[in-house]
Amino acid sequence: MSKIRVLSGMRPTGPLHLGHLHGVLKNWLELQEKYDCFYFIADWHALTTEYENPENISEFSKELFLEWLSVGLSPQKSTLFIQSAIKEHAELHLLFSMFVPVPWLERNPSYKEMLQNIQNKDLNTYGFLGYPVLQAADILIYKAQKVPVGIDQVPHLELTREIARRFNYLYKVNYFPEPEPILSEVSKIPGIDGRKMSKSYRNAIFLNDPPEVVREKVMNYVTDTQRIKKSDPGDPENRCVAFNLIKLYYSDEEIKEIIRDCKNAVLGCVECKKRLAERIIFELEKIWDKRLEVEKEDWKEMLYKGIETAREIAHQTVEEVNIIIFRKKII
Amino acid sequence: MSKIRVLSGMRPTGPLHLGHLHGVLKNWLELQEKYDCFYFIADWHALTTEYENPENISEFSKELFLEWLSVGLSPQKSTLFIQSAIKEHAELHLLFSMFVPVPWLERNPSYKEMLQNIQNKDLNTYGFLGYPVLQAADILIYKAQKVPVGIDQVPHLELTREIARRFNYLYKVNYFPEPEPILSEVSKIPGIDGRKMSKSYRNAIFLNDPPEVVREKVMNYVTDTQRIKKSDPGDPENRCVAFNLIKLYYSDEEIKEIIRDCKNAVLGCVECKKRLAERIIFELEKIWDKRLEVEKEDWKEMLYKGIETAREIAHQTVEEVNIIIFRKKII
Repeated sequence: MSKIRVLSGMRPTGPLHLGHLHGVLKNWLELQEKYDCFYFIADWHALTTEYENPENISEFSKELFLEWLSVGLSPQKSTLFIQSAIKEHAELHLLFSMFVPVPWLERNPSYKEMLQNIQNKDLNTYGFLGYPVLQAADILIYKAQKVPVGIDQVPHLELTREIARRFNYLYKVNYFPEPEPILSEVSKIPGIDGRKMSKSYRNAIFLNDPPEVVREKVMNYVTDTQRIKKSDPGDPENRCVAFNLIKLYYSDEEIKEIIRDCKNAVLGCVECKKRLAERIIFELEKIWDKRLEVEKEDWKEMLYKGIETAREIAHQTVEEVNIIIFRKKII
Repeated sequence: MSKIRVLSGMRPTGPLHLGHLHGVLKNWLELQEKYDCFYFIADWHALTTEYENPENISEFSKELFLEWLSVGLSPQKSTLFIQSAIKEHAELHLLFSMFVPVPWLERNPSYKEMLQNIQNKDLNTYGFLGYPVLQAADILIYKAQKVPVGIDQVPHLELTREIARRFNYLYKVNYFPEPEPILSEVSKIPGIDGRKMSKSYRNAIFLNDPPEVVREKVMNYVTDTQRIKKSDPGDPENRCVAFNLIKLYYSDEEIKEIIRDCKNAVLGCVECKKRLAERIIFELEKIWDKRLEVEKEDWKEMLYKGIETAREIAHQTVEEVNIIIFRKKII
């Protein structure tokens, strides 16, 4: 197996929406054609923020796996698994914790930002501080060379690189690779209100929304607020939130037409969004159909298979790491 | 098994000395007659301070186990094991980390003290900060009800109790017991120079020191510095470091005689320490003899047996904890 290994994970904290589909999953689908991809359900990471109400994590995890299969992630092409099934992540996390300086974690920009922004949860915990240490263990345990990340995740990945370097330096080995980011180019998917699509903003179209709900949500999208009547010319590129979604669902040719017709006040917003809703539903239908198939298949077996593959590698890495640190084993 | 469960551990950071024997191990020997004792080699804890030079931990671990057997800890009576062999400690540590507030750890008095006092090591690491979280996992994973501790360890145990309470509160269960301390009454064993006996002070008599070395070290013990000549009357109870060791090696009757003869200037310090050295050697000889036996026995098998017993319990606890936190398992 000389393919480059890629690793990425998703936290099971709620149902998937179009933001996940366009921002993450379509990228993963492309990657699985070229690379040796490891995709995992990060249920321990979910616990860092949901420890007070963890009762839905297992249901969301199952749901996440079924949705992954429904959008086309393939257990034949990729290794799909769940973090908490591979206990070795916890061990490597503990071993890394010994040599990771606290200031590395405290100065992590997304740590500071989340501590300030998330007011309804107490995140001043040991585990939340150590989030990037667990991430480093997740990545390095499979010696992943590449990690698809959004631009806001780059500092986290840099910490993983620093941890790999520090391990190699302290124990005088060249053992862990320093994983490189694969920066995803997709811009943020707008929610109904124009903010980033997110479950917590209640502005998301979920992959499992029924068609009528998708239609209703799309109709609620903010369009050009300066276009009062259909006969006013619109400015989709600068003033229409829905346009950012349109760009994902039409060909370049079609987009040009839409811009033209909007600017010429030929195409009204209601009509435009009706058509968009049908496009979205057309794409989602393929996912819904696949979902029905997937539920009839032995998806647990597929998950077991991924866990087994992942565990074997993780186990070997941790064995090797123990020999590197302790030089030899007493038993 | 209705016996109360006791848990304690020792860090494998160097050879054992008389301080360990009188301060810890004799206490453990008594406890193993009454309780269901779990004693473990805390090699992961050793790593928190030795991560830069961990190459001796595995040798010290083996040595520690052989010495435990030599002083009389019995795999038939107690469960003797090594921490790093029970991966479940790492998992429970990770799960606990999610809900332990950072300020609980920062205000831990021994944390602050060690950060200030230990200058030659960089202890400002994530793992060192989380030391008490790992300790809590070590103790609670076996649901130990009692933990023998020195007075300086009481705040650590209080943190374990707080973590047990927080778990029970957050997940609305009455699952973990709050372990009680068994305060050991033995006062600090003085080293040759009068400070607490410690490897790092180079003032220790080790259990594996040959007889001639024991004699030499005992002769170097500080005695009453105001007693210049043998004919000067001494004040052993107030001015003699060696007297604190004498108290451990003689009967009450004999101690009274020694005090009398010292105060009456009948017994000189040289003679007194010569006799003391022989008493110490007499006791150590039993340990040395046992050690020769132990090395001939299948000590690895004994360790495996302890590991197996510990692992079974730890595994069950972590299974139960996962069900409590996540409510159900997805696989």
